[in-house]
Amino acid sequence: MFEQLGLIGCGLMGGSFALAMKRAGLVKRVVGYSKSPSTTERARAMGVIDVEAPSALLAVSGADIVLLAVPVAATEATLKAIKHLVTKDMLIMDVGSTKRDVIDAGRRVLRDHIGSFVPCHPITGKEVSGVEHADPDLYAGRQIILTPIDRTNPAHVQKAVTLWERLGCNVLKMAPDAHDAAFAAVSHLPHLVAFALINGITAQDAGKEFLALAGPGFRDFTRIAASDSKMWRDIMLANRHELLEQSKIFRNTLEAMEAMIESGDGEALENLIEQASQARAHWRMASNVKK
Amino acid sequence: MFEQLGLIGCGLMGGSFALAMKRAGLVKRVVGYSKSPSTTERARAMGVIDVEAPSALLAVSGADIVLLAVPVAATEATLKAIKHLVTKDMLIMDVGSTKRDVIDAGRRVLRDHIGSFVPCHPITGKEVSGVEHADPDLYAGRQIILTPIDRTNPAHVQKAVTLWERLGCNVLKMAPDAHDAAFAAVSHLPHLVAFALINGITAQDAGKEFLALAGPGFRDFTRIAASDSKMWRDIMLANRHELLEQSKIFRNTLEAMEAMIESGDGEALENLIEQASQARAHWRMASNVKK
Repeated sequence: MFEQLGLIGCGLMGGSFALAMKRAGLVKRVVGYSKSPSTTERARAMGVIDVEAPSALLAVSGADIVLLAVPVAATEATLKAIKHLVTKDMLIMDVGSTKRDVIDAGRRVLRDHIGSFVPCHPITGKEVSGVEHADPDLYAGRQIILTPIDRTNPAHVQKAVTLWERLGCNVLKMAPDAHDAAFAAVSHLPHLVAFALINGITAQDAGKEFLALAGPGFRDFTRIAASDSKMWRDIMLANRHELLEQSKIFRNTLEAMEAMIESGDGEALENLIEQASQARAHWRMASNVKK
Repeated sequence: MFEQLGLIGCGLMGGSFALAMKRAGLVKRVVGYSKSPSTTERARAMGVIDVEAPSALLAVSGADIVLLAVPVAATEATLKAIKHLVTKDMLIMDVGSTKRDVIDAGRRVLRDHIGSFVPCHPITGKEVSGVEHADPDLYAGRQIILTPIDRTNPAHVQKAVTLWERLGCNVLKMAPDAHDAAFAAVSHLPHLVAFALINGITAQDAGKEFLALAGPGFRDFTRIAASDSKMWRDIMLANRHELLEQSKIFRNTLEAMEAMIESGDGEALENLIEQASQARAHWRMASNVKK
């Protein structure tokens, strides 16, 4: 399907994509670049990429497909670095968790070539990062959100859809703003809350003793708190407006429940818990339903 | 080790205890009682109990060990129902998630027989309830907190320690107040937060669409939100003082992080995320370490 993948960012997301594309026979050659030369070298040694590029620009040279797998805050600088070799025929995708800011960067930098850029958000990940955790199954069975804009080339969108589906993904298209609002609620806020909860505990004198007693509920609830700090700093700042809005809604709900606990209003409290319990018990991950 | 277990409450916790005790050969006969006759009947049909008792009092008759596996708010009424058959030789345990209130109920009702009561909190559970989910492995490898008081008979405490250890548990002794503070932080607060987060999302017009997009991070973070509403209402009200204190600490931490996001202070935000991420990455469940 593709001759050459230019991979910019050979970490967990990028490395897993390269492995999945190769295994599916969708690409012949992967040319990779990472900001850290040791990462690029490790990616080649592991067989994740075939050729090490000395710069982002050279990773793009000769590619018919390019994946930007860098922190969202690095998108603009990365696009600037490669823009002189971007062509109309080249499919460029990203894997960022926010879409409005990435698209704005694309418009500013790519200008007339913005049609080549198909913004993507794969709903997958691990709480560990780095090419050593790259996994050809990371994307299989997962949901991929595409947020094309009016100027995105429909032929490129179609190529992206076909590609992700051949990797076993469930592809969904959305407007960028709707995407950012939804993920503020179901991903960025849970991360912020998990970070705050851990920090609130460790800041207490008895925090270490408390943590030593925690059980399986705590383990699952806080799993996402072990995520990469630079990546999540960038996501939270990039989507700050939607995230702060969601955090406010959450705090208001929490304070309402606290008031019921304080006043001993067991009936109202039970109703709210039951509502949450029912909603969660009936929830299913979309991509798992469709597989 | 024991002749007859009087099991009051044949749900997930009680049913699993009966199965584990039988499998380990620690008890010859289980006489069970549940508030709902259909639960008691199902427990007998499943072989979780051997004999159905028509009342809590009759479940205790002839028992040398009694387990109260009822919601914490039902502890006092249950103790009142059985107190006329409680003896000095009988080991009485509970499995409640709060300990101060359970001990207070024990003091009020059991009076001179308070020495028989060894308050227990097994750090285990499932987000489903009911005898149909009873599992002989529910306690294996888990931590059990005992919170004996001055008046608890040391011989009974020792019997309880031996019993739980033979079920494969890691036994820890703590003061009741220290227990309640710790579990407010690492269990009750995460549940409250998970309930509030789900309710905050479902209350929004686009809440259903948001939930449909959620991925594996959300799945794990909110798993505990599917828990039983009556049980959690009771726990939160029973431990309200400590829980509200912990919730306040958490909200202050969250608001401090929000302020960094709002002002775009990436460095401070990254530091706090990194701190949480490191704390979580190095955390291990105690009982898993020791096995």
